[in-house]
Amino acid sequence: MQRHTISVLVENKFGVLTRVTGLFSGRGYNIDTLNVGPTEDPSLSRMTIVTRGDDATVEQIVKQLDKLVDSVKVVDYRKGDYIDRELVLVKVHATSASRGEICQMAELFRAKVVDVQPGSLTIEITGGESKIEKFLGLMKDFGIRELTRTGQVALPRS
Amino acid sequence: MQRHTISVLVENKFGVLTRVTGLFSGRGYNIDTLNVGPTEDPSLSRMTIVTRGDDATVEQIVKQLDKLVDSVKVVDYRKGDYIDRELVLVKVHATSASRGEICQMAELFRAKVVDVQPGSLTIEITGGESKIEKFLGLMKDFGIRELTRTGQVALPRS
Repeated sequence: MQRHTISVLVENKFGVLTRVTGLFSGRGYNIDTLNVGPTEDPSLSRMTIVTRGDDATVEQIVKQLDKLVDSVKVVDYRKGDYIDRELVLVKVHATSASRGEICQMAELFRAKVVDVQPGSLTIEITGGESKIEKFLGLMKDFGIRELTRTGQVALPRS
Repeated sequence: MQRHTISVLVENKFGVLTRVTGLFSGRGYNIDTLNVGPTEDPSLSRMTIVTRGDDATVEQIVKQLDKLVDSVKVVDYRKGDYIDRELVLVKVHATSASRGEICQMAELFRAKVVDVQPGSLTIEITGGESKIEKFLGLMKDFGIRELTRTGQVALPRS
């Protein structure tokens, strides 16, 4: 099943987030990642949802989101040209022997080491889906201790 | 009111997100930002929630989250030493006269220009709360066209 990125601009009202997530869970639609935060307009919040499904399913989701009283604008990024980014913080097991190699890999991926502890390194990486997956795949070999992901955000190019 | 960052490790089950957000909206607790994504363990998701409130309110929130059937671990990051980061994509109005200045500011904040259009620049910036707010404050003078934020994620230092 294909991944889809949906952006929903909603009024900054109480319970909107619950209504949107309830719409997904109530209909059996899976959410891979979701985030919500303020926008340039203090009365509006933007949610970005990554979901999986065939085209018909996603079209139905978008229609349902459009119908919500509090939704101002729904964009299905399948259809357009867009920039998507995610931020991941990952704590990797590191010994005096492996630290150098981990740092070198981080550099190659333009990731930043943001914390150093005797037995671990914490790395910040941003990018699109494939870059992040590749980096995390490499880090798995060293041992991932802890991991937190923001989920994708997206903006149209045009 | 103080901002608090709460991390909730939850079982990757259907409707968990709705139960967590419903807990906030049902009790009148405000959510500033929220994000949810996969972790190092495929059976678990991690949610990071930034909320505002006095200590007693936040303590109550944490207790309620702890009681949820699907929550595995709740961390209130007020209490410990942690690293927090957020990613923001911002599209700024840019003319041939202002483009250079915007790029220079982006560089000073270690932000990246990720898209160039005739009338705008799209910039990716990551950082803690104060850095992001400062950068967005500067970009406001040029004119923010569109903005999307992931909300904070956090990992403990120790």
